[in-house]
Amino acid sequence: MTKLSLISSSLLVALASASASAAHYDITSENHWVLTNKTTGTPQPFTIEQKVLQGGKQNGVKVLTINNGVMDITLVPTRGMDIYKVKSGDVTLGWKSPVEQIVNPQFINLQSRNGLGWLEGFNEMMVRCGYEWTGHPGMDKGELLTLHGRADYTPATQVVVDVDETAPYAIHIKGEILEQLFKKVNFKTWTEMTIIPGQKAFSIHDKLTNQADYPHEYQVIYHSNFAQPLLEKGAKIVAPVKQISPFNDYAKKGLKTWQTYLAPTRDFDEMVYNIYPYANKQGNTLAVLHNAKGNMGMAIHYNVKELPVLGLWKNTDTLGQGYVTGIEPGTSFSYNRSYQRKLGLVPTIGAHQSKEFNLIYMILDSKDAVNKQVAQVKAIQGNQKTELRATPLVSGKNL
Amino acid sequence: MTKLSLISSSLLVALASASASAAHYDITSENHWVLTNKTTGTPQPFTIEQKVLQGGKQNGVKVLTINNGVMDITLVPTRGMDIYKVKSGDVTLGWKSPVEQIVNPQFINLQSRNGLGWLEGFNEMMVRCGYEWTGHPGMDKGELLTLHGRADYTPATQVVVDVDETAPYAIHIKGEILEQLFKKVNFKTWTEMTIIPGQKAFSIHDKLTNQADYPHEYQVIYHSNFAQPLLEKGAKIVAPVKQISPFNDYAKKGLKTWQTYLAPTRDFDEMVYNIYPYANKQGNTLAVLHNAKGNMGMAIHYNVKELPVLGLWKNTDTLGQGYVTGIEPGTSFSYNRSYQRKLGLVPTIGAHQSKEFNLIYMILDSKDAVNKQVAQVKAIQGNQKTELRATPLVSGKNL
Amino acid sequence: MTKLSLISSSLLVALASASASAAHYDITSENHWVLTNKTTGTPQPFTIEQKVLQGGKQNGVKVLTINNGVMDITLVPTRGMDIYKVKSGDVTLGWKSPVEQIVNPQFINLQSRNGLGWLEGFNEMMVRCGYEWTGHPGMDKGELLTLHGRADYTPATQVVVDVDETAPYAIHIKGEILEQLFKKVNFKTWTEMTIIPGQKAFSIHDKLTNQADYPHEYQVIYHSNFAQPLLEKGAKIVAPVKQISPFNDYAKKGLKTWQTYLAPTRDFDEMVYNIYPYANKQGNTLAVLHNAKGNMGMAIHYNVKELPVLGLWKNTDTLGQGYVTGIEPGTSFSYNRSYQRKLGLVPTIGAHQSKEFNLIYMILDSKDAVNKQVAQVKAIQGNQKTELRATPLVSGKNL
Repeated sequence: MTKLSLISSSLLVALASASASAAHYDITSENHWVLTNKTTGTPQPFTIEQKVLQGGKQNGVKVLTINNGVMDITLVPTRGMDIYKVKSGDVTLGWKSPVEQIVNPQFINLQSRNGLGWLEGFNEMMVRCGYEWTGHPGMDKGELLTLHGRADYTPATQVVVDVDETAPYAIHIKGEILEQLFKKVNFKTWTEMTIIPGQKAFSIHDKLTNQADYPHEYQVIYHSNFAQPLLEKGAKIVAPVKQISPFNDYAKKGLKTWQTYLAPTRDFDEMVYNIYPYANKQGNTLAVLHNAKGNMGMAIHYNVKELPVLGLWKNTDTLGQGYVTGIEPGTSFSYNRSYQRKLGLVPTIGAHQSKEFNLIYMILDSKDAVNKQVAQVKAIQGNQKTELRATPLVSGKNL
Repeated sequence: MTKLSLISSSLLVALASASASAAHYDITSENHWVLTNKTTGTPQPFTIEQKVLQGGKQNGVKVLTINNGVMDITLVPTRGMDIYKVKSGDVTLGWKSPVEQIVNPQFINLQSRNGLGWLEGFNEMMVRCGYEWTGHPGMDKGELLTLHGRADYTPATQVVVDVDETAPYAIHIKGEILEQLFKKVNFKTWTEMTIIPGQKAFSIHDKLTNQADYPHEYQVIYHSNFAQPLLEKGAKIVAPVKQISPFNDYAKKGLKTWQTYLAPTRDFDEMVYNIYPYANKQGNTLAVLHNAKGNMGMAIHYNVKELPVLGLWKNTDTLGQGYVTGIEPGTSFSYNRSYQRKLGLVPTIGAHQSKEFNLIYMILDSKDAVNKQVAQVKAIQGNQKTELRATPLVSGKNL
Repeated sequence: MTKLSLISSSLLVALASASASAAHYDITSENHWVLTNKTTGTPQPFTIEQKVLQGGKQNGVKVLTINNGVMDITLVPTRGMDIYKVKSGDVTLGWKSPVEQIVNPQFINLQSRNGLGWLEGFNEMMVRCGYEWTGHPGMDKGELLTLHGRADYTPATQVVVDVDETAPYAIHIKGEILEQLFKKVNFKTWTEMTIIPGQKAFSIHDKLTNQADYPHEYQVIYHSNFAQPLLEKGAKIVAPVKQISPFNDYAKKGLKTWQTYLAPTRDFDEMVYNIYPYANKQGNTLAVLHNAKGNMGMAIHYNVKELPVLGLWKNTDTLGQGYVTGIEPGTSFSYNRSYQRKLGLVPTIGAHQSKEFNLIYMILDSKDAVNKQVAQVKAIQGNQKTELRATPLVSGKNL
């Protein structure tokens, strides 16, 4: 695992360490399954439960809930191991989408609505947009690429839970995602979420392997979405920025105020910004979102060697329409893949090679916690300038 | 509920009344469930059963069968609470489609065959065609609208059964249908069917709510389909008609004989007619279908303030190809939505507003019963003229 | 059943005979089911087991495994009764596709990737490509025909197992496949596989019925796929050939060496050949595939009155990309249907008529067994010439 050395080293060690497993469970076929520290014999209290939803388009969806003493996390194995929601005290990570159900991919046609079918199930806190491609729908190389790839419409082939036998007794939730098509692609991604009992943070450690005998393009965006109570009028996004530019013409007028958020605003729709972040020597960087008072927030740590760019999606429309911001470390921005090759944002993965993606999400529940993360941003930015580029990186009508 | 005062007032009261519930059941997650009046403690005999089908494309389909002493009704929660079939003595409402199974939406691609995928599951007595759009497939506003919307390819999110504790001990079967897509639509429809033990009639009371913060277009057709023994050579459709016109050029030659039906006819295919009905002062109106002898039939009561137009679909082809007629009260005809705006048949529903749709279906099992309903048609028509408009409302090759 | 008199008459009788059934089981709704000769009371040992897979896109897939004492066969009712794999001693029929799972049709959009969605589940030893159409994706009569039809993305409506009460105690596995769409098609296919305890062969006897009142075009390819240990450098395909031609320009350069196979070859992709076979007076013919040493192989017997042409698919790319050959008796080649009418390879099935398709697959586990089958090929070919047609039957860029 890449060393994300910006965050407290003890947490880092905890989240990154490999440890002997006290307990290993393959829960792929479980319909109702519960695990607690009483079973594993580890001292720190936790509960993990898997169940199957019923009713409408969520019929058959498997949901994993994890309580680590200070956080409740909901994962969705049936939707590519997406993170549906995280809750810790007053802080909730996630948002309220008009899509009420946790939708089973078997009911969704990603090609519908000109490739926007993905939106029929979009309501998670964190969605992996990849790995075959990411970005807006459109034709590339003669094929309709549907919105944001297919990883989160791919049910996990295997779901495994490991609990470490030594302190800090980390819980590892692993899921395997296959993107396979004869002659076209053979990607296997092992997703891993690590949670430590008693810690208000979790890490993602995903490993994409190109199992094919030929190299292949890949892309991924870690589409991380937040709303109240972090998002509100005067909420701020803080990140070390080398260059920020509007995604399209409509976003131009919000460029200068990119760092602050509006209250829910009728007819706002969305403004998206493309950010090239600064990082430290190891490539580590972060983005912080906090509320207006600055006493509540969250931070995402990631590494620009793995995920070189950051998308910022400001969708501060009405509460009913979706009041949400996306903070999106990725290999790529949200343009259709056809536009991103010129930007150098369509990397290739060699035959039988792997790529790893590491992120740490931290819940910030005090002014002090927020300030510490903001200080890390400032440390990375230092005296380096932020370019506000007025024109979008890509021009066109239907981006 | 809109007062459909044309039908016998006692039945009306029975079907329309809200009553304290003797029994309330959420059966969303039930795979095998039975309810009878022995359980509810009500005096009138009835049986309700939910089960799950297996085999082929009907795998996982939930079916609800209701016997109220004089009628057997089959509902399909997995297909948008559609009515599959109604049987009462010699009278059957419904038809024999080449599609033998009750198809699970998870196996259907509505976009296939240029937007005709809907036909792979079409075999019900009553299908709700809506609510985001209805009509024939085609492009509108840059998007392929698939045949007849998506409501009946949407499994019910919740299914609830209520039985009244006071006479006439009405049974209410309610199902929730969600049409949701981030940024695009947020419709919730509570469908309700009311059945009274011992009565050969049932009512539909649907409530569509636009849960979004913005207004939205909507459309619905209550696509009600009938075959033998009501449909036969010499069978008649009777309705108070202000204007009737052929749907397309092919239907022109059958305009004058619109009221009567042919025997199964090789190469007939289908003739469709667009009807603007007359109604009484309250907006109530009806359509009656009866056999050649006039001793067997059915009537649909509806209200033109909710459903202003009536589609008449005469598909009197061979028995194997599908010998069936559709009597289709709706907000709209069956043209693609792109054609219907000019006709004023694409209404808008305001933000957080609701629209209600009420219909009563009556089984007519005697000459007397048929005559009473035909008399109601005549009472509404009175001396008012029927315009036979020779040219279709919309011209074009691929309607 | 057509008499496939080329093979040993005792085996023929065994595979073709109708016999009183000692045991009849409808296993359509079974999730876990086992049958052995102890239950049927027949002397020859066998085991049949049905189970349901879980995890990822294979969730809910029913798999039938049959052991007849000398062979293990895996069938997939959820995928149109396809044969996944056959194993007998050192010989395996089947191949290793990049697609690892046995994919449930409910997760597949056949229209995706310009009609190549079929490839997301392609990994079987024998796939029925039909019956409404077969061939490469493309437009025909204004409709996108997706790759190789839909039969193997159609879960079997009914699955039935019969075991004969008299010697040789044949096991019959039958599955019903419905291709139905209002107004468009009404095909019912009863597939039947017959297996005899102790015999290293099995037969396919499929009966397609056009249940409609109108005639309809149909097509089928029995796409039979083989890899190691039969396929290797120097492996050979032996068949009585009247004419063989390259499918497209790329295949031209391999025409003269059509009979031999390469080792796994980087960037080879695929070469496809179209064969018009010779047959005996009854129409019976065969194709033999054997390894380089000629001591291991398989033979497919079929009848040109049912399946007039033979596709040869040589996909000797790398092991990871898919090292496989397809030997494909069919009504048609693999061109899009639009090209095949001119070739006379789009037959019509009359209203309420049936077409039968019979094939026998034999495992050849010795030099002697191989030689006997090769001798049958030679007997049919006799002195008749083989035309190597240099130009493809169809010209075009995107075939």
